[in-house]
Amino acid sequence: MSLVTIIGLLAAFGTTVSFLPQAVKTIQTKDTSGISLPMYILFTAGTLLWLIYGIMSGSMPVAVANAITLIFAAIILIYKIRYK
Amino acid sequence: MSLVTIIGLLAAFGTTVSFLPQAVKTIQTKDTSGISLPMYILFTAGTLLWLIYGIMSGSMPVAVANAITLIFAAIILIYKIRYK
Repeated sequence: MSLVTIIGLLAAFGTTVSFLPQAVKTIQTKDTSGISLPMYILFTAGTLLWLIYGIMSGSMPVAVANAITLIFAAIILIYKIRYK
Repeated sequence: MSLVTIIGLLAAFGTTVSFLPQAVKTIQTKDTSGISLPMYILFTAGTLLWLIYGIMSGSMPVAVANAITLIFAAIILIYKIRYK
């Protein structure tokens, strides 16, 4: 594995792991009152586009990080729409 | 500009723009009470690594998105440490 891929995977670890506790808490409590719906739609769409970009550009760290983030972001978005 | 770069720039737009209102609010109010310091250190380090990864792998959208995010994340991190 090249140095650049290792740096990418460390980057993916940092931003994904730092996102997860808040995401898990939001999913557990179903409390999405602090989240702006338009901003969260934009974020989820952005994450989906990063996933597509990662796959198309052959960037494994970008694809992996955004695949994980997208799952959690999509669940929170569904909660936001359902329980708002 | 290739299709994959356009998708990457749209992705960068989505995740960066959705991050900015909350970041600007946090910077204006200096209220970082809702932010976990260890998680935010991890996030800021992750963003810095994404910037390095973007530059090293020649991925302009990754570099641009994380350069912008890093500036705001670093300001918030300084506030978090200073005003906690």
